Amino acid sequence: MVAFQGEVGAYSEEAVRRLLPAAVPRACPSFEAVFEAVSTGAVTRGLVPIENSLFGSVHINYDLLMEHDLWIAGETQLRIRHHLMAKAGSTLPGIRRVYSHPQALGQCRAYLRAHLPQAEAIPAYDTAGAAQMVQQLPDPDVAAIASVQAAHEYGLTVLAAGIETNQQNYTRFLLLVQEPDTAVPGLASAEAGGSCKTSIVYTLQRNVPGGLFKSLAVFALREIDLFKIESRPLIGEPGQYRFYLDLDGAAHTEPVQRALTHLQELTDQFKLLGSYPAGS
Amino acid sequence: MVAFQGEVGAYSEEAVRRLLPAAVPRACPSFEAVFEAVSTGAVTRGLVPIENSLFGSVHINYDLLMEHDLWIAGETQLRIRHHLMAKAGSTLPGIRRVYSHPQALGQCRAYLRAHLPQAEAIPAYDTAGAAQMVQQLPDPDVAAIASVQAAHEYGLTVLAAGIETNQQNYTRFLLLVQEPDTAVPGLASAEAGGSCKTSIVYTLQRNVPGGLFKSLAVFALREIDLFKIESRPLIGEPGQYRFYLDLDGAAHTEPVQRALTHLQELTDQFKLLGSYPAGS
Repeated sequence: MVAFQGEVGAYSEEAVRRLLPAAVPRACPSFEAVFEAVSTGAVTRGLVPIENSLFGSVHINYDLLMEHDLWIAGETQLRIRHHLMAKAGSTLPGIRRVYSHPQALGQCRAYLRAHLPQAEAIPAYDTAGAAQMVQQLPDPDVAAIASVQAAHEYGLTVLAAGIETNQQNYTRFLLLVQEPDTAVPGLASAEAGGSCKTSIVYTLQRNVPGGLFKSLAVFALREIDLFKIESRPLIGEPGQYRFYLDLDGAAHTEPVQRALTHLQELTDQFKLLGSYPAGS
Repeated sequence: MVAFQGEVGAYSEEAVRRLLPAAVPRACPSFEAVFEAVSTGAVTRGLVPIENSLFGSVHINYDLLMEHDLWIAGETQLRIRHHLMAKAGSTLPGIRRVYSHPQALGQCRAYLRAHLPQAEAIPAYDTAGAAQMVQQLPDPDVAAIASVQAAHEYGLTVLAAGIETNQQNYTRFLLLVQEPDTAVPGLASAEAGGSCKTSIVYTLQRNVPGGLFKSLAVFALREIDLFKIESRPLIGEPGQYRFYLDLDGAAHTEPVQRALTHLQELTDQFKLLGSYPAGS
């Protein structure tokens, strides 16, 4: 079982099916609940969003990665496509109310204005929950904006597909497991060759001038490519940052292993979050 | 007038009042509308959120900064404090429905569970809109979660203050103007001494090995401190990134000016977003 945050039919569930088609997804009410479910062994794996191409890194999940001793075993990118859906027999001109998450309503505002000027946009807790509500309401004049997965789940008809204004909307998800090197059925292991990524988090020692530059030199001097770098200010500690890095290669192979040892000469906190096959 | 996104009473309006107490805030329906209003001269300034301590950078506003020729003239940090509010006479035990933005409901879930187990959480388009709805509904058993500003605006009584679980919730806002070096009444100018910040965006030339490291060397070798660094993958261009950097000093003073000239030997796209007094 793979825990995800949201209702059945949520984009996170679509990401589970994309990464691990044979796995059984399990809905959780919050990100915390996903981390708890994996930590306690209630499920073997969890999948959480870590960054979106329009709305940035989900820092709250980085915080939960720091608090829990879990390991990243994989990743996947999901293109977020919003669909307008209603009960069979409903027609576009007949729709009077459209339910969805406020972010999804915002992303589809141009479509709604052009094609459904008569309809009221009504916020819902999440996109899949909106689809469920449309299924349950007796009215034929209601629609939801959600994933194609949600349309299948709640037996709704897609009236219009891909109605989001900005089509460069991708969310990257991380697969979490309890122990490093857990074999995940259906997923290439980090050992099996192919492209491998390592994710780390660190803070720098205060007394190291040019610390950030030196910490990146550790990788540059060994010609290790970086896929992601992000600084996050530490609240209540002016001038102190936490750095998120994704780099090319597995943590236990050279030259990455030596680079990570070298890095820890400069860091205050350091946490290896995982090495995993680079996803598409 | 300072354009902001959201209803009257939104956190963005609170940020306007914090940064420029004498200015008149003007509500806009979207971030795009804020950028348009400043670009066309309908307002002289706009304020938009650029990053939140829990939910990351608001990439969509970085995109809008790339598309519009505006200039960052200032910044401010706002602690996001959620309050439970209702009409005068309503009591905590009598509340049956709580309206707010889904993110705010999520952030206050622990409080609601402990103190309002009888109440249903109902999503609303934004926090200030939820407060307005509570003001307008005749029922005495409804409440909203919103800013103290919204309570004032809609004449509601705060039943409980600061009910968010994670109190390290800060949003950083940028003040936008049409022209560089526009004097903003009430704001120290970047010229006036004191601490000054410069924000830039760039992509690297494809044929420069270790380009990121070299681009940071430009600053490190001149002992220019960095306040923010973030990479963002360019969709459809694997291995290409856009970098966001905030650095110490004004763009037209040395050694920053020379560093920025040096940087452009390595960059493909480069945009100076602004130099402005570092906010608190």
